Amino acid sequence: MLTDLYQLTMINGYWKNNMHDRHSVFQLFFRKNPFDNNFSIVCGLEDAIRYLNNLEFSESDIEYLGSLKGNDSKPLFSEDFLKFLQTIDFKCDVDAIPEGTVVFPNEPLLRIIGPLWQCQLIETTLLNIINFQTLIATKAGRIVAAAEGDPVLEFGLRRAQGPDGGLSASRAAYVGGCQSTSNVLAGKVHGIPVKGTHAHSWVMCFEEEIDSFKAYAEAMPNNCVFLIDTYNTIEGAKKAIEVGKELKRKGYKLLGIRLDSGDLASLSIKVRELLDEEGFHNTSIIASNDLDEYRIKKLKEEGAEISIWGVGTRLSTAYDQPALGGVYKLAGIENESGEFEYKVKLSEQKIKVSNPGVLQVRRYYESDEMGNLSPLKDTIFCEKLGIDDEMVEEIFEDLLMPIFRKGKLVYNSPDIHSIRNKTISQLQTFSEADFEQENFKVGLENKLNDIRNKIIKSHR
Amino acid sequence: MLTDLYQLTMINGYWKNNMHDRHSVFQLFFRKNPFDNNFSIVCGLEDAIRYLNNLEFSESDIEYLGSLKGNDSKPLFSEDFLKFLQTIDFKCDVDAIPEGTVVFPNEPLLRIIGPLWQCQLIETTLLNIINFQTLIATKAGRIVAAAEGDPVLEFGLRRAQGPDGGLSASRAAYVGGCQSTSNVLAGKVHGIPVKGTHAHSWVMCFEEEIDSFKAYAEAMPNNCVFLIDTYNTIEGAKKAIEVGKELKRKGYKLLGIRLDSGDLASLSIKVRELLDEEGFHNTSIIASNDLDEYRIKKLKEEGAEISIWGVGTRLSTAYDQPALGGVYKLAGIENESGEFEYKVKLSEQKIKVSNPGVLQVRRYYESDEMGNLSPLKDTIFCEKLGIDDEMVEEIFEDLLMPIFRKGKLVYNSPDIHSIRNKTISQLQTFSEADFEQENFKVGLENKLNDIRNKIIKSHR
Repeated sequence: MLTDLYQLTMINGYWKNNMHDRHSVFQLFFRKNPFDNNFSIVCGLEDAIRYLNNLEFSESDIEYLGSLKGNDSKPLFSEDFLKFLQTIDFKCDVDAIPEGTVVFPNEPLLRIIGPLWQCQLIETTLLNIINFQTLIATKAGRIVAAAEGDPVLEFGLRRAQGPDGGLSASRAAYVGGCQSTSNVLAGKVHGIPVKGTHAHSWVMCFEEEIDSFKAYAEAMPNNCVFLIDTYNTIEGAKKAIEVGKELKRKGYKLLGIRLDSGDLASLSIKVRELLDEEGFHNTSIIASNDLDEYRIKKLKEEGAEISIWGVGTRLSTAYDQPALGGVYKLAGIENESGEFEYKVKLSEQKIKVSNPGVLQVRRYYESDEMGNLSPLKDTIFCEKLGIDDEMVEEIFEDLLMPIFRKGKLVYNSPDIHSIRNKTISQLQTFSEADFEQENFKVGLENKLNDIRNKIIKSHR
Repeated sequence: MLTDLYQLTMINGYWKNNMHDRHSVFQLFFRKNPFDNNFSIVCGLEDAIRYLNNLEFSESDIEYLGSLKGNDSKPLFSEDFLKFLQTIDFKCDVDAIPEGTVVFPNEPLLRIIGPLWQCQLIETTLLNIINFQTLIATKAGRIVAAAEGDPVLEFGLRRAQGPDGGLSASRAAYVGGCQSTSNVLAGKVHGIPVKGTHAHSWVMCFEEEIDSFKAYAEAMPNNCVFLIDTYNTIEGAKKAIEVGKELKRKGYKLLGIRLDSGDLASLSIKVRELLDEEGFHNTSIIASNDLDEYRIKKLKEEGAEISIWGVGTRLSTAYDQPALGGVYKLAGIENESGEFEYKVKLSEQKIKVSNPGVLQVRRYYESDEMGNLSPLKDTIFCEKLGIDDEMVEEIFEDLLMPIFRKGKLVYNSPDIHSIRNKTISQLQTFSEADFEQENFKVGLENKLNDIRNKIIKSHR
């Protein structure tokens, strides 16, 4: 039911015209990287699989759809059609680029082949899941890169776009390279490490700041990060150090102190000095306060002594570009005679013209003497047409992998930690140069390009 | 479990210090209107109530929390503490400003009074729900205002931030004044009118565009809005009109045509002419394509003949400001001796200093000769201190209403249509002048202001 009504009205139309079972192919892709980034990190497949594995209309769904009226106050959908919907038995072949892979504009991230009506029904939810998680994983990748190896903690739940906006964002942020989340539900559901100690309200519940640190250290000596900016950051640091000494005597550690306001660069430098003077060299300084990749870079340039970065709102909502414009386009369909016809979505805007056929992405690599692979270029091609100008380089992989075959799941989702590792290793595989504007080449295979142009001409 | 880990570590600390049951008060408010708007529309209470009515830790939640480890690899939480969590019996008093009310910065939208640990546990989810839905309702209000009475349809699900990001956005958009949504689940769950007809893919599944319109008209004659820009908008319009004539002959209506690309102003003017020439005066022109309040205003200025506006991404993600910075602050707590102490969250930034006490908002009105009320000013006051400078105006209402008393729901949520009507009538009650920058006065009551200043001084 998480779909646009027009999917159901179209399915009704296909069904009445007996076109609903026509074999068709749709592909999901985006046209432009978000944040002026030069690549994206694909994410969301696991949730998409869960959705596709549980496609059904409940009794109450059908009842609700039966209550919808058209302009003439008569039911929008006939009882026969609603019965048809209830028989849904997912039959599609689904291929996808695994999560954590570096991807580029126009590359099909998901490919759905099957009965027209089923391909259409699932469009909206697939877009919703893949658009958002790819957006956040890519944003997280940028922030993690700016942190230059320092851990990044995600804690955006309170400002995220709805409960699930928060849950999906925590997952995608981890896939994109974050080290942990504050979101307990994401920890439970997705197995992401969770982190958290205390807020300003903790400090405010005690008469004196130092009493709050002491009480916390007594209650949770194995999880001591003190937030020191409730009244005065430098005074707070001194009190944290005092309690840190007690912790040491008892065999525990002052893991960190946290700054959440003020001039983070100068404050962190001063607090680092205070900590080092007292021998707390391993105590981390964690900073937060509307951080993102730009602010982290700036703080690094200013010499901030921050070793762990807490990032919330600007990561979890992808603040500077809160939506990825992914689309899902028909690329071919069986006609009345049962022949497969290639389809192109035309547009006045050239960037909006889609690619026809059953697409695949081939990524070519070159190997150095040590056998390390580095990506050379991507070629988008149509599987039925093959590759005309086969590259001499022999090393390649086809990025889209089989996920469902005739509606049956044939893919073992890797665990979330493996997906995160994939992201990290992918980012290492590509050189910095690959990520520079238009350096990494993504091409359309010749025969695919020809058929695309032919179709465009035939329409104009 | 949809909470930040630090809420649970703090609760553990309160519990170990035997402070967890101390009577305390927290208030949820924002400091700045989003989008440089001069007011906001509060939204999300119904979902907050559902959440609070279902507070519990399941067996598997407890098991998961028991598996978390501290820095010394020992469990973060003791078994006794986890048993304590499981006994949760919600005991708080909750007051809230009803959804659809016009609100201003620093006004408490929710007020929670009760045992410290319970107030703390619910912080994150309450912020998540109220922040996002208030943001979207306010955005919707802006867009609906720009449409100057034309219906606005929301269809942002595919670009929304996660499945629930989409569901919450559809709800809040309706509360903010939208006429309907494309989101079928939102229709079912929240009773919002749903709308939808067909996409480009429908047209592309037929050999000829006109065949697609004919087939649609035959299948769903009572729901005919044709999308006419798949190949060429003007040619598309002519074909839609041709099929519209057939519809007329059969006693049906061509409800509308939809434009989704190109220069919407000039295209709509041309299409309006074509429709009018053929007598289709009541056929609506629906436009979409990355619309928001700015683009709608511009199109209106350009004389666009658009009668219904379809708004997606920019509404459902609040594209130009995708998060509301609402906060939830401790404003008072019983001390060791059982006395109530006022609390202020200090900050280097003046805007971040909070208000102490059990707050209420009194809205004063003046009445014209016809008995129509218009709002005069809002006064934030502390219920225990009362109002020192009582206004001579006799007409007022206190905005915060009782929602829970000792954990029991005492509020009947209005249905979604009443909430939407409340928004619309609220916006009519305020004059345009009230919405101009700093025109509408929101003041702190004298005694509250005094006690706030006293606390600030005592800390500095």
